[in-house]
Amino acid sequence: MPMSTSYDKKKRILLDPAGRRMREIFSEEDIASLRAWFDVVWAKDEPIPLESFEREKQSLFAVVGCGWRFGAVDGMPALRAILDVGGGLPRPDTLDYETCFKRHIRVLTCAPAFGPMVAEMALAMALDCAREVSLGDRLFRSGEERYLHAGNTDTFTLFGRRVGFVGYGGLAQTLQPLLEPFRCPITVYDPWLTERHLRNAGVAPSSLDEVMSESDVIFVLAIPTSHNKAMVTRRHLEMIRPGRVFVLMSRAHVVDFDALTDLVLGGRFKAAVDVFPEEPLAKDHPIRRAESAVLSAHRAGAVKDDLRLIGRMVTDDLDAMNRGLPPHRMQNAEPELVFRL
Amino acid sequence: MPMSTSYDKKKRILLDPAGRRMREIFSEEDIASLRAWFDVVWAKDEPIPLESFEREKQSLFAVVGCGWRFGAVDGMPALRAILDVGGGLPRPDTLDYETCFKRHIRVLTCAPAFGPMVAEMALAMALDCAREVSLGDRLFRSGEERYLHAGNTDTFTLFGRRVGFVGYGGLAQTLQPLLEPFRCPITVYDPWLTERHLRNAGVAPSSLDEVMSESDVIFVLAIPTSHNKAMVTRRHLEMIRPGRVFVLMSRAHVVDFDALTDLVLGGRFKAAVDVFPEEPLAKDHPIRRAESAVLSAHRAGAVKDDLRLIGRMVTDDLDAMNRGLPPHRMQNAEPELVFRL
Amino acid sequence: MPMSTSYDKKKRILLDPAGRRMREIFSEEDIASLRAWFDVVWAKDEPIPLESFEREKQSLFAVVGCGWRFGAVDGMPALRAILDVGGGLPRPDTLDYETCFKRHIRVLTCAPAFGPMVAEMALAMALDCAREVSLGDRLFRSGEERYLHAGNTDTFTLFGRRVGFVGYGGLAQTLQPLLEPFRCPITVYDPWLTERHLRNAGVAPSSLDEVMSESDVIFVLAIPTSHNKAMVTRRHLEMIRPGRVFVLMSRAHVVDFDALTDLVLGGRFKAAVDVFPEEPLAKDHPIRRAESAVLSAHRAGAVKDDLRLIGRMVTDDLDAMNRGLPPHRMQNAEPELVFRL
Amino acid sequence: MPMSTSYDKKKRILLDPAGRRMREIFSEEDIASLRAWFDVVWAKDEPIPLESFEREKQSLFAVVGCGWRFGAVDGMPALRAILDVGGGLPRPDTLDYETCFKRHIRVLTCAPAFGPMVAEMALAMALDCAREVSLGDRLFRSGEERYLHAGNTDTFTLFGRRVGFVGYGGLAQTLQPLLEPFRCPITVYDPWLTERHLRNAGVAPSSLDEVMSESDVIFVLAIPTSHNKAMVTRRHLEMIRPGRVFVLMSRAHVVDFDALTDLVLGGRFKAAVDVFPEEPLAKDHPIRRAESAVLSAHRAGAVKDDLRLIGRMVTDDLDAMNRGLPPHRMQNAEPELVFRL
Repeated sequence: MPMSTSYDKKKRILLDPAGRRMREIFSEEDIASLRAWFDVVWAKDEPIPLESFEREKQSLFAVVGCGWRFGAVDGMPALRAILDVGGGLPRPDTLDYETCFKRHIRVLTCAPAFGPMVAEMALAMALDCAREVSLGDRLFRSGEERYLHAGNTDTFTLFGRRVGFVGYGGLAQTLQPLLEPFRCPITVYDPWLTERHLRNAGVAPSSLDEVMSESDVIFVLAIPTSHNKAMVTRRHLEMIRPGRVFVLMSRAHVVDFDALTDLVLGGRFKAAVDVFPEEPLAKDHPIRRAESAVLSAHRAGAVKDDLRLIGRMVTDDLDAMNRGLPPHRMQNAEPELVFRL
Repeated sequence: MPMSTSYDKKKRILLDPAGRRMREIFSEEDIASLRAWFDVVWAKDEPIPLESFEREKQSLFAVVGCGWRFGAVDGMPALRAILDVGGGLPRPDTLDYETCFKRHIRVLTCAPAFGPMVAEMALAMALDCAREVSLGDRLFRSGEERYLHAGNTDTFTLFGRRVGFVGYGGLAQTLQPLLEPFRCPITVYDPWLTERHLRNAGVAPSSLDEVMSESDVIFVLAIPTSHNKAMVTRRHLEMIRPGRVFVLMSRAHVVDFDALTDLVLGGRFKAAVDVFPEEPLAKDHPIRRAESAVLSAHRAGAVKDDLRLIGRMVTDDLDAMNRGLPPHRMQNAEPELVFRL
Repeated sequence: MPMSTSYDKKKRILLDPAGRRMREIFSEEDIASLRAWFDVVWAKDEPIPLESFEREKQSLFAVVGCGWRFGAVDGMPALRAILDVGGGLPRPDTLDYETCFKRHIRVLTCAPAFGPMVAEMALAMALDCAREVSLGDRLFRSGEERYLHAGNTDTFTLFGRRVGFVGYGGLAQTLQPLLEPFRCPITVYDPWLTERHLRNAGVAPSSLDEVMSESDVIFVLAIPTSHNKAMVTRRHLEMIRPGRVFVLMSRAHVVDFDALTDLVLGGRFKAAVDVFPEEPLAKDHPIRRAESAVLSAHRAGAVKDDLRLIGRMVTDDLDAMNRGLPPHRMQNAEPELVFRL
Repeated sequence: MPMSTSYDKKKRILLDPAGRRMREIFSEEDIASLRAWFDVVWAKDEPIPLESFEREKQSLFAVVGCGWRFGAVDGMPALRAILDVGGGLPRPDTLDYETCFKRHIRVLTCAPAFGPMVAEMALAMALDCAREVSLGDRLFRSGEERYLHAGNTDTFTLFGRRVGFVGYGGLAQTLQPLLEPFRCPITVYDPWLTERHLRNAGVAPSSLDEVMSESDVIFVLAIPTSHNKAMVTRRHLEMIRPGRVFVLMSRAHVVDFDALTDLVLGGRFKAAVDVFPEEPLAKDHPIRRAESAVLSAHRAGAVKDDLRLIGRMVTDDLDAMNRGLPPHRMQNAEPELVFRL
């Protein structure tokens, strides 16, 4: 049911999600709403030809796409919003953010749409490690399963365990409520946030050393930046206590992956890994044989049904902006952070 | 730190947990508290010899054990409580409940101590099935992993999904808050509870047919009784919608296991199974080969560290009863239910 | 909609709520359900004549009433439950509890029905004191109101304040979640409960001295017993810090009311009082003039619409017992506590 | 304990909170932190003389004050933030927002600091009306109190009642969790928000007519704008059902106050009022005599101790911006909303 009130003249929006598909991210209902409220341009799976774009650009109120491949925004006087449905933001070398900020053009990312599915997978993989679900299943298939206590010599429950987060951005904040029923005290290392911010959020600020050495379950949730390449070093990984759980969810970039592989192969601790330094990972990469690892092929943020959340956010925020209100579901590109990426 | 006030004469209690071990269920602190408050008899891992029991029985205030092998309670005038640390209750053919009720002898079970670890495993296995964690890990180990969307053709997240419970006893009530962050509407089949009881608990009462046919994730949590043998029939299992998740946690007794095996082998739905009709399961049982199953060797309720919760409950309730108060942590044998078992 | 399955022969129940009225506690729907499931006897507002009772008693399965005025239960072979709708339990000098326990006759009280309304009033009165709502309204009516900061010289908000409970029974446990959004640490004095029980419930066990001297808001919630007459002495009341809030909800019996009157008149602290040593209170009682008090005429537990909750509990528990299940909404008379009253 | 890392050269900030006092909003700890991280200018209760400001302005990184009285920001090349501690934002006729946005100068309001204390007062006054706390206290003081049910002929509890919000901004969002334990369905009228935004927030979007006619408790929480003067008309007020509760918290501007006065004097419904069309209100204003009203002299947002939250927010956000991060506690002036005010 369309919610925006009608206007004398509909604004024009470009739907050019190339990289994703229309039907993958938009429900019937969302498309119908957008068509009711706006004059919709393109709306196909393949990328709009640049010459077509040039014909339309002057009248466009908003552009929905993956990244930005249209050059300067100068010839787009009506433009009020760029909505990125890829998962990140247009790179600063492709989009002129300075002009966008000056002209109050909103640049928005659908990144928050991935939070729930990735956070759920983080929990699933942490539980899998702590309770040895995959390992137990593997043993069962080979007829070597051990029953009751014999099958629980190295397991633990999450209840009341010390959890450590490396990074406290959107993903961490989405994971936190999933852990709430387990009443785990959460310690956080995030150099971009103040201590009081973290305390107000109900977590304990800490150093990376402490997070690594004191936690029962460590979640790596930090967004990759130019500053945090291999921030979690071999020394840090060696601090993890025996039998504890290390969950790598955000990017392999953040961790010394060779060290991680060595230590998990050596049985020092358990690890759940969804992201790898190269994907696909080499067929002979040794981590594939690690008994105390649970491996996932970058599958956490790609659940089919849930991608429709992207379209719902886009639709809601276009509705708001059409009424002259600020968007409220997608994430705003903040000047401080864009210029730092 | 002992909490009970001192008494002129300490009451005597028998600690005879044979079947479990003293150190497995009691922390140092709990043992110290019990010794401070009571005159403790036996407290060894092996069963107390019956002749020793006969010498002590007249003065015993409470007996802590697994089941009941001491015959009539008539010669035990001081007896006020029987605390079962095995997980169930003494069988009615071994213990004279009628006399216990008449004499206000409390019969208590530590069953609630297992709730959190079994509920956690139920969640872990449900997530494992829905997100294909074990399957993805297995494929990764054989070099057949598929990345991103290609690895998510049959997965779904729990958020907002319809959950069905078969049975709404202590285990279900412990699982419910773990599911809360996922905001799943929960439908329940439990013939022992009234509709209003269920509605007051925040779940929707339903028929078994509806639970099976409408749910995205079905948890079997019912305690086995003489009435519910294979209550979940082949017909019920055939109602599960394609690709949905069936989690068997309480007892295989409740389900037609052959039908379950057939259907899961046929790929009709996904299944997580922690309990089997015979344990250990036959090495050639076909369910071991089911691709869409996650198998666990009755490991949900046997996490080492968490067994200490049993001792904590025993200690707390003995403390309460020593002060003339009702116990509050272990579960009371209710006449209506005991006589029905 | 009746929920109990039909039986060859309906059981008989006596509805004799004299002291309350039928329509006050039972909705149309509840009465209809009871009539559908049971053969209902009497069901009038005035007390059943004893000779009528004598004629019926042999066949009664359950008796719903206020207190017990029918003597021995010996002539009532079918009796399985006594449901008290007055708010307490039959006095031990009127009802032979020993026989009830021996025969597994449930004795139940509707006390939990009053928890929500009394807890809400406790919160309302605490907020009224802390924010000076009634006082501010009184000043406004006399044209003496002071605006903004000038009207807030002695107020405080509840957020994060130290709360103390005297007594941790049903009422306290119902009040606790209402305070949760304010994130107040709660300290409890309750000599009937163990330290661990309290810690498990999320509150901090403490001495009465500490509760009185350290809390910003003190709630007196203890049930009157023969042991706690004026348990909160003048010395305790003098410990309350200046300007803090003392809320008396359960019974005046628990407090030295003369001392309370003196200290509140002297402006030592603020007080909210719903219960008095004699009701109606003497017209010239000095507490009526206390500027820093909020007074309520035992009104917390008597909200008209909410009394229907009593009938709902009675109906639900009769439904359960009719099916041979334990009751689950009303509170069971525990042997330990009954014999102590 | 200062948290910002040291810099070669401290940035300069102006603390000029005139309208508030330094000590009223800043704790010792906050001032110490600001002095450790910044070169602090002025920091006195009286307004900085304009000639002093002129001398300093070129080097200022941030200005903390009430409103804006310094003209153009052109001569302030270092300026990155204006932090308003008054409660609102600088008026658009005093501050050149366009230039601020172009230069990425953050304009921030401490408005969220008032949310908790105003929301608490809204709950307190709603409970006071529904349970007749002030009225009951008034009757008690004049010796006319009525006990138990006689004193509850017109009261109701909040549990499960239909709540209506007029406006769903920061205050409403702070009030919502305080109502959560009462499990009230909440209906909202807010023409600035989309239906889906409201549904996602757990409330039901609705028309103003419906909110007025269907709710048991109505909270007016809308910020005054040029468009909503007397938006709640006499016709709307006449829709309130008899005996229900109307709580006016945000501004009298939003309501036809004469109509409100008439209807409350006529006993049509109950009203709690914290804000008035003129303050102080005329001594002979008839609403002062309304028996079914609870009146408060604009006291909801002026609790002494809680004003320190303003200083805490200012300190946290200056810390963040000093590190090149976005502020996260104060509220950002959004272009869409500023240009609409």
